Amino acid sequence: MRARVLLTLLLVLALAAPVRAGGKDDRLFQASVLPALLAGDYAGSFGAGEILAKGNFGLGTFENLDGEMVVLDGVIWQVPASGQVRRMDAAAKSPFACVAFFEPDLRLPVASAANLEDLDRQLDAALPGLNRFYALRLDGRMRVKARSVPRQDKPWRPLAEVVKEQSVFDLGELEGTLVGLRCPAFAASLNVSGYHWHFLSKDRTRGGHVLDCSFTNLSVAVDRLSSLELRLPKAAAFDGLDLSGDRSAQVKAVEKSPEAKK
Amino acid sequence: MRARVLLTLLLVLALAAPVRAGGKDDRLFQASVLPALLAGDYAGSFGAGEILAKGNFGLGTFENLDGEMVVLDGVIWQVPASGQVRRMDAAAKSPFACVAFFEPDLRLPVASAANLEDLDRQLDAALPGLNRFYALRLDGRMRVKARSVPRQDKPWRPLAEVVKEQSVFDLGELEGTLVGLRCPAFAASLNVSGYHWHFLSKDRTRGGHVLDCSFTNLSVAVDRLSSLELRLPKAAAFDGLDLSGDRSAQVKAVEKSPEAKK
Repeated sequence: MRARVLLTLLLVLALAAPVRAGGKDDRLFQASVLPALLAGDYAGSFGAGEILAKGNFGLGTFENLDGEMVVLDGVIWQVPASGQVRRMDAAAKSPFACVAFFEPDLRLPVASAANLEDLDRQLDAALPGLNRFYALRLDGRMRVKARSVPRQDKPWRPLAEVVKEQSVFDLGELEGTLVGLRCPAFAASLNVSGYHWHFLSKDRTRGGHVLDCSFTNLSVAVDRLSSLELRLPKAAAFDGLDLSGDRSAQVKAVEKSPEAKK
Repeated sequence: MRARVLLTLLLVLALAAPVRAGGKDDRLFQASVLPALLAGDYAGSFGAGEILAKGNFGLGTFENLDGEMVVLDGVIWQVPASGQVRRMDAAAKSPFACVAFFEPDLRLPVASAANLEDLDRQLDAALPGLNRFYALRLDGRMRVKARSVPRQDKPWRPLAEVVKEQSVFDLGELEGTLVGLRCPAFAASLNVSGYHWHFLSKDRTRGGHVLDCSFTNLSVAVDRLSSLELRLPKAAAFDGLDLSGDRSAQVKAVEKSPEAKK
């Protein structure tokens, strides 16, 4: 009888330990670094299983830069350059992704946003400080302009070149979810500093990297993240990349809409 | 009988799980970010226990900027501005520290080094790529010039100002250990990009942040680290810091010797 109680206790301990040590918490998981993606490292270094073990919410891209990744409610969605959204399975691979277990700590009312810059500006004013990582989720009806990037063959070209050939989707007004991430200024050398938004429609047929959006009467669910787990690709090819130098101009070029760049 | 086997199996699982999930591995643990230290955040946000749970080897500083921290073989040592090295206990607190469980993957022969720049240059040429984090350990006889920083009272001044009042120790030639860390270029916004060396003498009486060193016939034990765990201070004061802007000039000012700055 005592053995059975101990057995149960130990079973609970064994099952609970991985969660305590590295599961659901206030941590952003980042697979690879943005400079590697900018340099054209589109190798699928991280599997879907590895990514979903670290979060159920986030964004990224796929092996060979095959479209935009949206991770929502524990499912990985692909928005390829064709615009035809696909649900990805365990075989999906990624060169760059950022995920967290989304557990909102606060809800910010944003009465309306005229455009993406307006949304970002309002959020900056409303967030409890800009020195942490934040995962942000907006559900509802909005106007969205999104983009995706075309799948690349080797030899891989730098991201700033590929983005010139991006597909832009004027999605009009529709129901859906903005999946956002905000990185602090001190993350500028390894990720996008500031906001990074991907979109997925409610019917899971449209989406992409958000270039612009507007809405009225939505609220923002915010998960404040106080730690970062960065994992680098294992492949020796990663060691061969030249990742020196300031890439802030390149980041701006690949993140913004073609018009905003002027 | 079967229950006892299961019991043993589960006990092993329960004990092993924390190690698998976040214990000894190829991970650098970083407490807070360098821009916060530069901005004068000297609050003791991280306890000795929390730091030693994440590594047995590394460097940092103490609450109120009270000297240089050397973590070696699982012990935290303090080199205050007085130069009198002290072994710290569980009550020690830190605003900034970087540690790893030191498990060398390779050994690099460095026949001799004329100065610190020479050592860094030789290591850059010998390391298997500069896109990962490295913990580096050199044991032996060397000439060392080190420094420490004086304990600060509130209101805390920026680190670049405090460093002007640093104590410089010409330690001469002595037996000891160089405790080093190399961060890749993409970590420049949150840590020292390149090498960062602290020293502790073999008799544990001298040490500090290394400004210069030279030696002949030593080898370098290297632990290649492919992930980073960054943890931010919990305190609301951290959220109030202005951490925007480029701090690379400040980093150079606080890391190098007074002469090297010219």
